[in-house]
Amino acid sequence: MKLLEDKILKDGVVLPGDVLKVDSFLNHQINVMLLSQMAEYIYNHFKDCKVDKVLTVEASGIALACLTAQFFCCPLVFAKKSKTANMQGDSFVADVYSYTHKTMNHIEVTKKYLSVGENVLIVDDFLANGEASKGLISLVNQANAKVVGVACAIEKCYQGGGDSLREQGIDVLALAAIDKMEDGKITFRNS
Amino acid sequence: MKLLEDKILKDGVVLPGDVLKVDSFLNHQINVMLLSQMAEYIYNHFKDCKVDKVLTVEASGIALACLTAQFFCCPLVFAKKSKTANMQGDSFVADVYSYTHKTMNHIEVTKKYLSVGENVLIVDDFLANGEASKGLISLVNQANAKVVGVACAIEKCYQGGGDSLREQGIDVLALAAIDKMEDGKITFRNS
Repeated sequence: MKLLEDKILKDGVVLPGDVLKVDSFLNHQINVMLLSQMAEYIYNHFKDCKVDKVLTVEASGIALACLTAQFFCCPLVFAKKSKTANMQGDSFVADVYSYTHKTMNHIEVTKKYLSVGENVLIVDDFLANGEASKGLISLVNQANAKVVGVACAIEKCYQGGGDSLREQGIDVLALAAIDKMEDGKITFRNS
Repeated sequence: MKLLEDKILKDGVVLPGDVLKVDSFLNHQINVMLLSQMAEYIYNHFKDCKVDKVLTVEASGIALACLTAQFFCCPLVFAKKSKTANMQGDSFVADVYSYTHKTMNHIEVTKKYLSVGENVLIVDDFLANGEASKGLISLVNQANAKVVGVACAIEKCYQGGGDSLREQGIDVLALAAIDKMEDGKITFRNS
């Protein structure tokens, strides 16, 4: 999506350690008008998939996921992060390893908010190693619901998570797919 | 707002300890169409205030705040929670005491995302003792910006936070203001 790529080139900041800082428009201050256009782009890609529900994980995925759910006129569910797994048995729980913080976390969704046979679209801000997406897919699978696809604002292709999901036959849509970041220069895939 | 009051009476669950569970439509699974109408209600109340920015705190305030910012065609900023105060000096930081978890937390916003003289509307899902709102107001004050008001989905009036803000001259809008919850029965203020 050229609009987002241009915004990343204009306002994104590449920091040491492959960190792309986009907190001026995507995940701290949020350019809601841009996100709304991004949500429409996601809608146009998945509009024939009979999406019943949009699923994301707190916190920075919520804004884009909310605007996407608005286009589909469907509910949004956000998985909650916790350090300890919920032991009450009323939640689907998945492990998500954080490479950034080098810790294992849990994400969970109350069982009644993911139902058998539902078509679920997963939306998040970043897709890097794919740990968060795999956790969300696990929650959908535990519910015997169906993942219709994974949409992310920014994919860091060189971390492999997106391609690993594609190899499993999952429709992965990245609005901006970054092939490499070298010396502060960003190269997008297919552009 | 009658639509929200009716939804709370229909789908809210009152649990022991004054807990109102609204996670089927407000803060886990989100009824985006309802939230969009709530955002419009907030917009109509504050539309003459020249709102430059909507401010909330992660995570459950983000959806309503995002849809509200959409009506105002303005950016959304969400404060981040942290256990330890950012020591780099590039953030505004406020303490927020959590009565639920009995812990002191910090919320912070990178300084460049709140500017001198901006009109800031604070939006959150719940307003109870007012700790989160007071923290957000502190961030706005540190930036020498102006709080035009505080809008929340649900105010628990009996916890006093909303009235304490009103006494300071702040325009507090609660879409559903709960005066008491007794034996599972919810009584709204002015209804």
